[in-house]
Amino acid sequence: MTLRAHILGAAAGGGLPQWNCGCENCNLARNGKIPSQTQSSLAVSANGNDWAILNASPDIRQQLAQTACLHPSNLRTLPLCSVLVTNGDIDHVAGLLTLREMQPFSLFATGAIHDVLSNNTIFDALNASVVDRQTIATGQSFDLAPGLSATLFPVPGKVPLYLEGDEVQTDLIGDQTVGVQLTAGETTAYYIPGCAVLNDELRTRLHGADAVFFDGTLWRDDEMVRAGLGQKTGKRMGHMSMSGPDGTLAAFSNLNIGQKIFVHMNNTNPVLRPNSSEKTEAEAAGWIIGQDGMEIVL
Amino acid sequence: MTLRAHILGAAAGGGLPQWNCGCENCNLARNGKIPSQTQSSLAVSANGNDWAILNASPDIRQQLAQTACLHPSNLRTLPLCSVLVTNGDIDHVAGLLTLREMQPFSLFATGAIHDVLSNNTIFDALNASVVDRQTIATGQSFDLAPGLSATLFPVPGKVPLYLEGDEVQTDLIGDQTVGVQLTAGETTAYYIPGCAVLNDELRTRLHGADAVFFDGTLWRDDEMVRAGLGQKTGKRMGHMSMSGPDGTLAAFSNLNIGQKIFVHMNNTNPVLRPNSSEKTEAEAAGWIIGQDGMEIVL
Repeated sequence: MTLRAHILGAAAGGGLPQWNCGCENCNLARNGKIPSQTQSSLAVSANGNDWAILNASPDIRQQLAQTACLHPSNLRTLPLCSVLVTNGDIDHVAGLLTLREMQPFSLFATGAIHDVLSNNTIFDALNASVVDRQTIATGQSFDLAPGLSATLFPVPGKVPLYLEGDEVQTDLIGDQTVGVQLTAGETTAYYIPGCAVLNDELRTRLHGADAVFFDGTLWRDDEMVRAGLGQKTGKRMGHMSMSGPDGTLAAFSNLNIGQKIFVHMNNTNPVLRPNSSEKTEAEAAGWIIGQDGMEIVL
Repeated sequence: MTLRAHILGAAAGGGLPQWNCGCENCNLARNGKIPSQTQSSLAVSANGNDWAILNASPDIRQQLAQTACLHPSNLRTLPLCSVLVTNGDIDHVAGLLTLREMQPFSLFATGAIHDVLSNNTIFDALNASVVDRQTIATGQSFDLAPGLSATLFPVPGKVPLYLEGDEVQTDLIGDQTVGVQLTAGETTAYYIPGCAVLNDELRTRLHGADAVFFDGTLWRDDEMVRAGLGQKTGKRMGHMSMSGPDGTLAAFSNLNIGQKIFVHMNNTNPVLRPNSSEKTEAEAAGWIIGQDGMEIVL
């Protein structure tokens, strides 16, 4: 059994370019000088014919139009079995609104994430007669697609921005933010697009994996502040950063992982520039910088 | 004063290609044989510098990336004054979720449409400290952008699909579906992306306009049924069709209108094929088939 992962969108919320951003990367992308990247989504399959989509980004229509393995084979026959969302962030759930049109699939999420959807009646556009919403507890194994099973696990994170109260815990452990273990035969991969900190439990879990797709939001924790784009650090947004002594490159350096791929990169991240020294540094540490359309076959 | 209208998206909900559709048009678009079209949105300006967006389609990130007049002029400075939505349909409101990121603008809609948004807390992503939601009564004139005023008026239509009950009135007159009168100096244009029937009141209103952007969802009322794509007629969806004795071409034939432009075309509509006889017939009746990126200057 082969595990195929197709990066539908490599960018974090906002994408590259982000609609209202005039930073260096966004301007380069608008002018075609560096590749544009759509928002966070990964398609996975064990047999190459039946697919699951992990996170439904706002860009999903554009992403599917560009991805031949997910095109309809008939008037309304699609190679899509299921959609799984790993948190309630807009970059991961807004695309569900595009997946209306009476197309059957299973929609997997934890109870906390399903609550976000059911509290917003606009998601009733996913007609309950064809879209089967299944609540999955962390630790419970389930079938995403033929030959492909998954298990969710808690990852330190926070509630979606639009649900934040006055006090926000950014490294909450619960079922508001989860990672996904993917298993096809003997192959195991992990998908963790958002992670506030790599704690010992996660470290133990990921050790020995064939591949890890991991939160690559920022290069530096204060990257957006320094760029004049806002007051928020990566930590405040619930994301660890790539560089520095507490960064992702350092945290993963002693783990034995087949392929390490960054996804969910913010538009400001310098690794999105093909010739940047930061990209070179990440690659030297054994990381692949995910790109729209990249396929990883395990 | 010049009125500029830039078609951000010429297609109806679903776009061309629609993610799950294998009809002739969708396959041609996927293969690059006919132009793809994104979902329903129009940008308008009186001075060419300050813009309003009429309807926020799910494709708005892609649309804005491709539209130079709406690019940021600075780190976070945009030539966008306001967004107006004409109903609560997903193809007209889902893009509001993309317009988060603390960007200030005014959000105009009727009370009924604002209720749809406020009943879905996910739209709180539009932070109330920067996005000013203004409720506009039909018949009330207001400023969309410098030099550009607007007035909303009821158009026969229905509630959004995800809010339909057991009984659906498809030609309801109220504030759930509105048209927009745009005025810049002596120039008047109308934007009506959804309309169930051209009644006498609308006919009188539109007579003598410099331009009308009008609902072009289907060519024939039973187009989707005949294509094997569903059981719904255009009438059931709250849209009049282009052809036939009750169709739009016939209904507009005696009105004195400067430019008539079809927008909001469903993926099945044959006028989306550049060489179709239906497109020739619509053009012979004085209509322009709207396309993504088309600019109309009045």
